[in-house]
Amino acid sequence: MKNEINLSLLTDFYEITMANGYFETGMADKTAVFDMFYRQVPDGGGYAIMAGLEQLIDYLKNLKFEDEDIEFLRSKNCFSDGFLEYLRDFKFECDVWAVPEGTPIFPHEPIVTVKGPVIQAQFIETMVLLTINHQSLIATKANRVCRAARGGAVMEFGTRRAHGSTAAILGARAAYIGGCSGTACTIADRDYGIKALGTMAHSWVQMFPNEYEAFKAYAQIYPENCVLLVDTYNVLKSGVPSAIKVFKELKPATMGIRIDSGDVSYLTKKARKMLDDAGLEDCKIVVSNSLDEYIIRDVILEGARIDSYGVGERLITAKSEPVFGGVYKLAALEVDGEMIPKIKISENIGKITNPGFKKVHRLFDKDSGRALADVISLNDEEIPVVDDYVIFDPNAIWKKSHLSNYVVKPLMVQIFDKGQCVYDSPSIDAIKEYCKEQVETLWDETLRLENPEPYYVDLSKKLWDMKNQLLEERGI
Amino acid sequence: MKNEINLSLLTDFYEITMANGYFETGMADKTAVFDMFYRQVPDGGGYAIMAGLEQLIDYLKNLKFEDEDIEFLRSKNCFSDGFLEYLRDFKFECDVWAVPEGTPIFPHEPIVTVKGPVIQAQFIETMVLLTINHQSLIATKANRVCRAARGGAVMEFGTRRAHGSTAAILGARAAYIGGCSGTACTIADRDYGIKALGTMAHSWVQMFPNEYEAFKAYAQIYPENCVLLVDTYNVLKSGVPSAIKVFKELKPATMGIRIDSGDVSYLTKKARKMLDDAGLEDCKIVVSNSLDEYIIRDVILEGARIDSYGVGERLITAKSEPVFGGVYKLAALEVDGEMIPKIKISENIGKITNPGFKKVHRLFDKDSGRALADVISLNDEEIPVVDDYVIFDPNAIWKKSHLSNYVVKPLMVQIFDKGQCVYDSPSIDAIKEYCKEQVETLWDETLRLENPEPYYVDLSKKLWDMKNQLLEERGI
Repeated sequence: MKNEINLSLLTDFYEITMANGYFETGMADKTAVFDMFYRQVPDGGGYAIMAGLEQLIDYLKNLKFEDEDIEFLRSKNCFSDGFLEYLRDFKFECDVWAVPEGTPIFPHEPIVTVKGPVIQAQFIETMVLLTINHQSLIATKANRVCRAARGGAVMEFGTRRAHGSTAAILGARAAYIGGCSGTACTIADRDYGIKALGTMAHSWVQMFPNEYEAFKAYAQIYPENCVLLVDTYNVLKSGVPSAIKVFKELKPATMGIRIDSGDVSYLTKKARKMLDDAGLEDCKIVVSNSLDEYIIRDVILEGARIDSYGVGERLITAKSEPVFGGVYKLAALEVDGEMIPKIKISENIGKITNPGFKKVHRLFDKDSGRALADVISLNDEEIPVVDDYVIFDPNAIWKKSHLSNYVVKPLMVQIFDKGQCVYDSPSIDAIKEYCKEQVETLWDETLRLENPEPYYVDLSKKLWDMKNQLLEERGI
Repeated sequence: MKNEINLSLLTDFYEITMANGYFETGMADKTAVFDMFYRQVPDGGGYAIMAGLEQLIDYLKNLKFEDEDIEFLRSKNCFSDGFLEYLRDFKFECDVWAVPEGTPIFPHEPIVTVKGPVIQAQFIETMVLLTINHQSLIATKANRVCRAARGGAVMEFGTRRAHGSTAAILGARAAYIGGCSGTACTIADRDYGIKALGTMAHSWVQMFPNEYEAFKAYAQIYPENCVLLVDTYNVLKSGVPSAIKVFKELKPATMGIRIDSGDVSYLTKKARKMLDDAGLEDCKIVVSNSLDEYIIRDVILEGARIDSYGVGERLITAKSEPVFGGVYKLAALEVDGEMIPKIKISENIGKITNPGFKKVHRLFDKDSGRALADVISLNDEEIPVVDDYVIFDPNAIWKKSHLSNYVVKPLMVQIFDKGQCVYDSPSIDAIKEYCKEQVETLWDETLRLENPEPYYVDLSKKLWDMKNQLLEERGI
């Protein structure tokens, strides 16, 4: 059983004042198009990982207003009775397109597009952003950490430092999508099939007269998965020798030691030698002390001997940059059957939006399979397959790219058709696998943890012309 | 209706392997004492604000294992049938003491103490930490932001950037405790009575032919609370003039403008002058663009004219330091009716724990009412009221403090008595008011945002002697 909760009012209050406003001005049923996109990759990385769509779909499927919601809103004394009755009979009617979970995504391209009555398309803004921002943040961070670990298993260990229960549970889900092999969060296993792992805390060791007794008791109960925490007193003088003694006496099927403090580079090298000298080459070494992608990269360079990593607070909070700045902007408004593009101007060039009802394609090199560029176009455009396809940088007027020898794939899929869900979320393992495959289509320059080469997200000529025309009309 | 959810398995997997281990080794009913405490104030501040207790109480009251939980655990093939039957009949039996919500708390002092069968006291670790860490993080950050605003109203606007739904909802609750005057998060109003606020997004303005039309439509619908967003196109050339025109024509009861981009210092000074020149001295100015305590402090120093602040992502994620590092450590174990103190050693002095079954008192100056020091003592000690009371720095052997002319107040209250809840959480407004009062007992040196003077959290002589004896026995 997943926990079923009524989150319909998990929305910024202004979505409701605007909805009531559209209702009162007779604009409620005007068809609008909104795009969600983000402006900057966290941590200065080259790409982000899309995640959270399954939870957004759950929200949209269940979007309805209960009596308690209506009465609460009535008590605010600023909404009309007609509007409250509209909410009582609310039925979601929008079209929604989105990039599937696990896909690498880039700044400024639409990752969710919503088309429908403005009263509805506007209302869902907060939850579109909340669900996608949170899980994309964590999936992106997890992908960085796993990349740094170069194939070493990374376990998500951050539940106790997460920002509340959803952050813990769905953070574990997002971390798994991004590449983690498991989690400490038990309920994420029950509800989402993310394998939960864990063995002992320091308190287990402290409950016994000494480490040897504590380890022996544990090995007797868990001979199949015996990972012993060796840093309660002194790793090299007491913890590892006691673990070796127990491993040799009881010969558990799976042996490991975990080091949770001290210098993991020095300690793992020493511990590895002690284990090997004792003939315990099969014993794995797990470390778990305030790790992130930078520390993992560096200790590997130093020759640390680590088989797997427990990554806690710095992953589950995305500590180095805990905000995924996705935004949701009006892109077009249907007037008399015609889609009128809308643009948001800003003195900051990066904050000027891409107008119009759009779609996005990714172009892959026909030979290598590598991703060459993403092209944002108007919704009714076809991306041609030609020998010299020219796409346009959204900002720099002189910057164009010429593409050839490519295959074209649409980046977004339809999720809702007039309010009906037309998409089945893949299994969590399929999403994780898809993420791995898609990341492998990126170039090394894009994968670099710091200062990566920017990937092309360009505009079709038609969209570029339209955008420039709108800017000229506005006198920009 | 608050959403009722089964979070009993929201726990690190190792809590369950240890619980099963205690069960299998016959240690389950040994009485243990665990303390939650934290080691460092986020952002280098002088104190933190305790929050999240009400949600911890809800969790502990509802802690039981459903069939689905039992069957899930059985499927892991590592737990005994006896243990699973124990869980099926689980009844919480611990004593719990905690610092009330809204109290300023300091590093290394117990803020939650749990005494009871080790199998239970250990199991609840993850949720004790998760609930208190998250809300204390946000309440502490909010308190910093509100202090920087010097009485200006601060609204929590971060829902869309929160780490999932709980972070949004309970983050709004914690921010209110810390001093915010309201939230954008509607459901936090319905479920927790945190006043929700909000008016319009840029998309509202873009839906109309021009700003004047958009503002006029809004003012007609919401004459009681008319805050107009003036930065969709150009604040000073278009937004503010259009707002002034509408205000003069329609005379709404409450008038305000919101600026969400650009330099708030420059723009608010100019906008204030334009409003005043138009006779609209009553019109308030709200700003909301990536604010935090540092920017608010600085723009106030620059003479910005701001009446209230909408603070989003940097508050709801505690962006500058998104981890509250509370830990939960074994402090004592009852053996043959006697409480044996337990200590966790570390090469890092700051990580050595305070052993024993303890309590904490705060000593206030009898004349000024200001907080002088917190004293951690053994549970059976009385704190004397004498002319020269000497307390001991936990680490520096030569550092003592002499106190006189003080009143003594216990910092923790009992929350559960043998599993029965014996505490009623105050109303959210009472908690917020209590927080305000208690912060006023701190000295200016402690309130300083950066590089504050450390507050004394010392040990009683008896506890200090016991700790030193344990360290000597361990050869430290």
